[in-house]
Amino acid sequence: MKFKRSERLIDMTNYLLAHPGRLVSLTFFAERYSSAKSSISEDLTIIKETFEQRGIGTLTTVPGAAGGVKYLVGIKSDEATAFIDHLCSVIASPERLLPGGYLYMTDILGHPETVNMIGRIIAAAYADKQVEVIMTMATKGIPLAYAVANYLNVPVVIVRRDNKVTEGPTVSINYVSGSSKRIQTMVLSKRSLAEGSKVLIVDDFMKAGGTVKGMVSLLEEFKATLAGITVFVESDEIEERLVDQFVSLIKLTEVDERDKIISVSRGNYVNN
Amino acid sequence: MKFKRSERLIDMTNYLLAHPGRLVSLTFFAERYSSAKSSISEDLTIIKETFEQRGIGTLTTVPGAAGGVKYLVGIKSDEATAFIDHLCSVIASPERLLPGGYLYMTDILGHPETVNMIGRIIAAAYADKQVEVIMTMATKGIPLAYAVANYLNVPVVIVRRDNKVTEGPTVSINYVSGSSKRIQTMVLSKRSLAEGSKVLIVDDFMKAGGTVKGMVSLLEEFKATLAGITVFVESDEIEERLVDQFVSLIKLTEVDERDKIISVSRGNYVNN
Repeated sequence: MKFKRSERLIDMTNYLLAHPGRLVSLTFFAERYSSAKSSISEDLTIIKETFEQRGIGTLTTVPGAAGGVKYLVGIKSDEATAFIDHLCSVIASPERLLPGGYLYMTDILGHPETVNMIGRIIAAAYADKQVEVIMTMATKGIPLAYAVANYLNVPVVIVRRDNKVTEGPTVSINYVSGSSKRIQTMVLSKRSLAEGSKVLIVDDFMKAGGTVKGMVSLLEEFKATLAGITVFVESDEIEERLVDQFVSLIKLTEVDERDKIISVSRGNYVNN
Repeated sequence: MKFKRSERLIDMTNYLLAHPGRLVSLTFFAERYSSAKSSISEDLTIIKETFEQRGIGTLTTVPGAAGGVKYLVGIKSDEATAFIDHLCSVIASPERLLPGGYLYMTDILGHPETVNMIGRIIAAAYADKQVEVIMTMATKGIPLAYAVANYLNVPVVIVRRDNKVTEGPTVSINYVSGSSKRIQTMVLSKRSLAEGSKVLIVDDFMKAGGTVKGMVSLLEEFKATLAGITVFVESDEIEERLVDQFVSLIKLTEVDERDKIISVSRGNYVNN
């Protein structure tokens, strides 16, 4: 059965979006649609142009017998900035204030369209960086880590504070929490991370950076390398930062519980 | 600037896939592409036919001034069954055995393409059921809950075993764990679930069903209604089940630690 160009374009778009970062051979598409490779090539040119024009991302072509095409996620910088500005105003709402100066943010990372957009913004910055694994800390970092992982199509490993019988043998390290100066433990299942992996650390919130620094130490135990650190929100209200190289989407500059003031601005993602 | 049909089809496919379950007006697309509504209608007919033919899902049309088109996720039943059979063979691997007869499954739910396919299989069964919220238990259910939520485009609420200062006021209940018969506590942030919501409970694993039964009790505290219960893996090795109406993708019938035998079969999803 032959497929029309319009049908091929729709199905190929769906297929490429569902398999970002994966090399798909022209032969695969040619067989899928009983079409000539020359037609598939033309289809891919149209898709690439539309993806780039609409800020969906791009297609990169690998020539040769083992070659094919790969979808890399992207976003237009003005679209990313507009969304970050929108999130700033959402976060600055005084109803988010909790006793102790904490902010309620669970709902933001609970909505698929929102968490996926944040994930896409982060993933777009690493689409061509050969990231192999996303690492995060349980529990609050998990939704965001998966959102990023979906767009880079790489697995997620979850660091925990406690040992679970369902995780098998683990590697654990002690680290100093930056804010409270307490010694804490983090554990990672030995099976979950292959030695030498290139890892992107993603978390929802960073204050002094003790947790993130702990994850970096854990990477060393697995002989893994660091592709980067990205947090959704960084808090600026600290004396000393334990981590200096990181990307943040949003910066929390002041939380005044008494006067109900939350000051939020763009993180360093926007200018990088 | 005018758009060609081919460009519209690609961008509309991307847009609809990113906003499942959401009503999109024809005017929105007509303005987005500076095209006549009649052209947009033709485009949508082609997309609908291709989505249905390839098992991507369907488009439903709501007529009238407030109307539009809505993408509902789907999957061909033979594709779902083949994937469940594939997962059965993955889970039955003896290397997954951990001391105490537990199974290591973290890697399966750590891979985006795998967890998304499981999420799509579950979501397809509820695409027209007006689910408003996905509920799961921290931590292991979270990735699967988000995968389902992505395809239904509804928020996730996460039930926890402990109180967190960043969650604000909570509702807590006590429940009896089915296997260990111990009294345990689960808590849910008051803000996270609106009264009267229609909730789909999703979890990675169910033995006697104590945790799931606890979540059902929690729904009553929020005057929420139950849309359904779906678990990735149910264990058949129990004396008494505390929950009787649920859907499972995979059934674990035997785990023999000494002889390293794991018996796995299709869950009740396949025949329903």
